[in-house]
Amino acid sequence: MMSAEALEAALRAIGAERYHVHHPFHHLLHGGKLTKDQVRAWALNRYYYQASIPAKDASLLARLPTPDLRREWRRRLVDHDGDGVHPGGVERWLALTDGLGLDRDYVTSLAGLLPATRFAVDAYVRFVREKSLLEAIASSLTEMFSPDIISQRVSGMLRNYDFVTAETLAYFTPRLTQAPQDVAFALAYVKEHADTAEKQQQVLAALRFKCDLLWSQLDALHFAYVEPGLPPPGAYRP
Amino acid sequence: MMSAEALEAALRAIGAERYHVHHPFHHLLHGGKLTKDQVRAWALNRYYYQASIPAKDASLLARLPTPDLRREWRRRLVDHDGDGVHPGGVERWLALTDGLGLDRDYVTSLAGLLPATRFAVDAYVRFVREKSLLEAIASSLTEMFSPDIISQRVSGMLRNYDFVTAETLAYFTPRLTQAPQDVAFALAYVKEHADTAEKQQQVLAALRFKCDLLWSQLDALHFAYVEPGLPPPGAYRP
Repeated sequence: MMSAEALEAALRAIGAERYHVHHPFHHLLHGGKLTKDQVRAWALNRYYYQASIPAKDASLLARLPTPDLRREWRRRLVDHDGDGVHPGGVERWLALTDGLGLDRDYVTSLAGLLPATRFAVDAYVRFVREKSLLEAIASSLTEMFSPDIISQRVSGMLRNYDFVTAETLAYFTPRLTQAPQDVAFALAYVKEHADTAEKQQQVLAALRFKCDLLWSQLDALHFAYVEPGLPPPGAYRP
Repeated sequence: MMSAEALEAALRAIGAERYHVHHPFHHLLHGGKLTKDQVRAWALNRYYYQASIPAKDASLLARLPTPDLRREWRRRLVDHDGDGVHPGGVERWLALTDGLGLDRDYVTSLAGLLPATRFAVDAYVRFVREKSLLEAIASSLTEMFSPDIISQRVSGMLRNYDFVTAETLAYFTPRLTQAPQDVAFALAYVKEHADTAEKQQQVLAALRFKCDLLWSQLDALHFAYVEPGLPPPGAYRP
């Protein structure tokens, strides 16, 4: 069994190898190498991920045993669904798809979604619903790595695309403070509750699984819209 | 509401557009354009699909209401799992991966699987478990189109690859007679039980879903091992 510090180091090593900040599609995106249609395809598909986050958080919340823990996790639902006055992350993501000129009904209908996006996102929601609470919480730890990818995305996209504004990228700004707050709790929980070698391995596998599903979403976008550029039947075509 | 004949025609039209016989990876595979390592990647990933078929059939079988229907569906389990004397489809698939020189423990460990393969196959097993019996049965109807793809695969691979023999392709031969028998039952069931416009639409959506998940498995193989050729972290590397 590892020390808690060694477990954290092992988690960070997974991110260093597998987090989608290293994916070629991410480099194209923030490097200004994509067309507006390719950025649209990204935003359209990523909408399904954003829209599914509250479902996974609600099913995790439903299994937390104490008011303290539930309040902590409930904050994530507020962040994503809003409070009726301030828009949440899902609404802010739609501001991005609006800003890119995508029809909102088309986006929320999911009609143009890549099947691979649906399979990956659904796998995440089910993982959280079906695995142990410890594994479900551990799967959220990709947020340890998200401030870097967000700052690359925001600065790169603002610099490189004239069709992107600070307003359309408003999704990301609150995430820069929300994610570290989420991580502080989840990482402490995991370090405390992964108290056998077997549980530590489960935690590492959960983070690997989560990295894989983020990565495979970019694989599918890259395949369909960049190289070789073959969107499957029924998917969004620019 | 359509007539039963119009429903069958609509099902066949979905196959004509979306069945993976039209995927570029399939053309490369049977056309002899792949390296042995690329064929290995295909066989390795497809193993997980083959190995999961009995799980989906067993969960469907568990929901069938009569001995007649259960006996009919039970035949599929015999086809895939064997009878202890004659090998089933899963075992015959391993003869293919053996013949390609893949280590059997490595194949069955799933360690080198593309995450996208896992997400797509798991989505299928869950679809069958969670949707209505009618939709679950309808999702099997890609077998309407499989004799064509199988005969293209077998004849093309035997002609074009010196590392493939009739023995390693023994998986496919019984499928040419099993699939039409399966289809005769499933298609008749669907035509009889899809007795409202809404159920007919569910049946068509189920077949579209199934085509999508076969297609997306080839997308992922093509992306990782052909073009641009970027296997995700942890996946099989030749």
